[in-house]
Amino acid sequence: MTAQYCIAIDAMGGDFGPRVTIPAALDALKRHPFLKILLVGQQQQLQLILKRHNQLDHPRLELLHSESVVAMDERPALALRRRKDSSMYLALQSVADGRCQACVSAGNTGALMVMGRGILQMLPGIDRPAITSAVPTLHGHSYMLDLGANVDCSAEHLLQFAIMGSVMLKAVEQIALPRVGLLNIGAEEIKGNEQVKLASRLLSEQSDLNYIGFVEGDAVFAGKADLVVCDGFVGNIALKSSEGLARLISRKVRTSFTRNLYRRLLALLALPVIKELQQQLDPGRRNGASLLGLQGIVVKSHGSANRDCFSHAIDQAVSEVEMNVPERISEQLERYLQRSSASE
Amino acid sequence: MTAQYCIAIDAMGGDFGPRVTIPAALDALKRHPFLKILLVGQQQQLQLILKRHNQLDHPRLELLHSESVVAMDERPALALRRRKDSSMYLALQSVADGRCQACVSAGNTGALMVMGRGILQMLPGIDRPAITSAVPTLHGHSYMLDLGANVDCSAEHLLQFAIMGSVMLKAVEQIALPRVGLLNIGAEEIKGNEQVKLASRLLSEQSDLNYIGFVEGDAVFAGKADLVVCDGFVGNIALKSSEGLARLISRKVRTSFTRNLYRRLLALLALPVIKELQQQLDPGRRNGASLLGLQGIVVKSHGSANRDCFSHAIDQAVSEVEMNVPERISEQLERYLQRSSASE
Repeated sequence: MTAQYCIAIDAMGGDFGPRVTIPAALDALKRHPFLKILLVGQQQQLQLILKRHNQLDHPRLELLHSESVVAMDERPALALRRRKDSSMYLALQSVADGRCQACVSAGNTGALMVMGRGILQMLPGIDRPAITSAVPTLHGHSYMLDLGANVDCSAEHLLQFAIMGSVMLKAVEQIALPRVGLLNIGAEEIKGNEQVKLASRLLSEQSDLNYIGFVEGDAVFAGKADLVVCDGFVGNIALKSSEGLARLISRKVRTSFTRNLYRRLLALLALPVIKELQQQLDPGRRNGASLLGLQGIVVKSHGSANRDCFSHAIDQAVSEVEMNVPERISEQLERYLQRSSASE
Repeated sequence: MTAQYCIAIDAMGGDFGPRVTIPAALDALKRHPFLKILLVGQQQQLQLILKRHNQLDHPRLELLHSESVVAMDERPALALRRRKDSSMYLALQSVADGRCQACVSAGNTGALMVMGRGILQMLPGIDRPAITSAVPTLHGHSYMLDLGANVDCSAEHLLQFAIMGSVMLKAVEQIALPRVGLLNIGAEEIKGNEQVKLASRLLSEQSDLNYIGFVEGDAVFAGKADLVVCDGFVGNIALKSSEGLARLISRKVRTSFTRNLYRRLLALLALPVIKELQQQLDPGRRNGASLLGLQGIVVKSHGSANRDCFSHAIDQAVSEVEMNVPERISEQLERYLQRSSASE
């Protein structure tokens, strides 16, 4: 069986580097028979870890040596100029060259965006890449976009997010008409800042979008919309605040259940339920944020992802490759741009 | 014993009106021997409920009749012009007249702000009132400011919030040097939008402020700062998103613990622990948000507050009266304004 597509993995990225990225890649290869992986990183390190897993000669695994690594706190613009020999740069380059169809990295988010933009270029009509990720809801999950890639978004940017996110959800989640909500401080028309008011008008003019109007912060986890569109500053803070509260709850549960012997016994009994809940609920656990708007697929994993989480990020890239997301976004954008130039 | 201060209560405000506000007021009178309360509302309704509680002749309770009520969805600016006979308007007016030292309302937030500004006037140097409220942390609580009163805040507004909040925490929470953090999408200097970058420079120039730099969304519930300063749009969405996640967790816990008989039994055993946790954690339960920057004390209760919650909002007003918060804010602002005009 021949491999039908190849995904480049920045094997050095993230808090744990190849110790996590390599086993996760091997897991993904098992799950996806048409997948080929290009591991980009310091060759000796990669070989050492592959040897430990007895997978030095995996038929669907290739290595690409890189000299350096982009540090987690490195300035994105500097990284683009100075780190042309880094695992992140070379992984993205392999997508630009057509050698790979997607890139997955757990490295520096800002650098990944700036390098992605510099190496892969933006789709026509899109100014800056945006980040989207799934958050848990009562009966599944919904997506937020943007999650911190763009601050000070104009109404036009919010519209671009809505179009891109909507197309991605149609493709990856197979939702025929994803409900798009605009994050605001109230559901009434008069609420909010100038950007969201103007964006709301722009969104409601799009016949291809299933725009449901403003949604408030608490609607995100209630699943009122399939896609919640927001400025990256707001989205990032909303998601991280919620993660913070989830962590606080988890700590308080632990304290509460260890206060005395009776409660410790109770906790033992309840442990499976608690574990199940933690898995379902931690918004940080659903891994694999997509960078949308680039001429290529780039998936960002949490820096602290473990083997399972990083493997989930690879799955996300696989779905986007199979569904040809950037091309579909591009087609939709073209239609929108034609309409808006025709109406001018 | 003579009553030393009087608090006006908008008895008609909130989802439940006098059925909640009156018993809550009676509870507060029991707790605070120097407190006198002016109940503002439809006289017959108030008398009926007071009679039910056998408190028609409470020596520290007065009634003030009002004809109308500000609706929860009424436009604030219209309410200010048209509702001069409303319970909210007359309660605020009693503070402006000096008859009362504070006002508590569970009514329409926007109307309370606009009326508060119109009737009580702003402190010199402050443009718009800001809302602050406590959120739970691991070992107590911290405050967020602003929570939705102001959208599109300038750096100067964020500085005003920091000064006002800091003074309030010194007074009400008895913290000598409250740690002030600025909400941002990263802790590094280069992150964020223009407003927060500029605000950070302004804050670090204030020798009276204990400014600790940028904090991220997850730091809010971790208690890294005593006061988290942010634009009202961002603060409102961060708080409501977190509330949404807390509700989702609570629902998932219920589903998880009712899946089979064994789990239902387990839930019965764990019930006291779960209830205790819910009380500690729901960010919506800590009631009593303060409107800062006005020439008078105004406390906003959740619209859906029950007797205990509304009573807690009255306590918040009592603390602010006892600590003379607006005057202390005003003094601090004066010092700041003198310094900044001297340095010009």
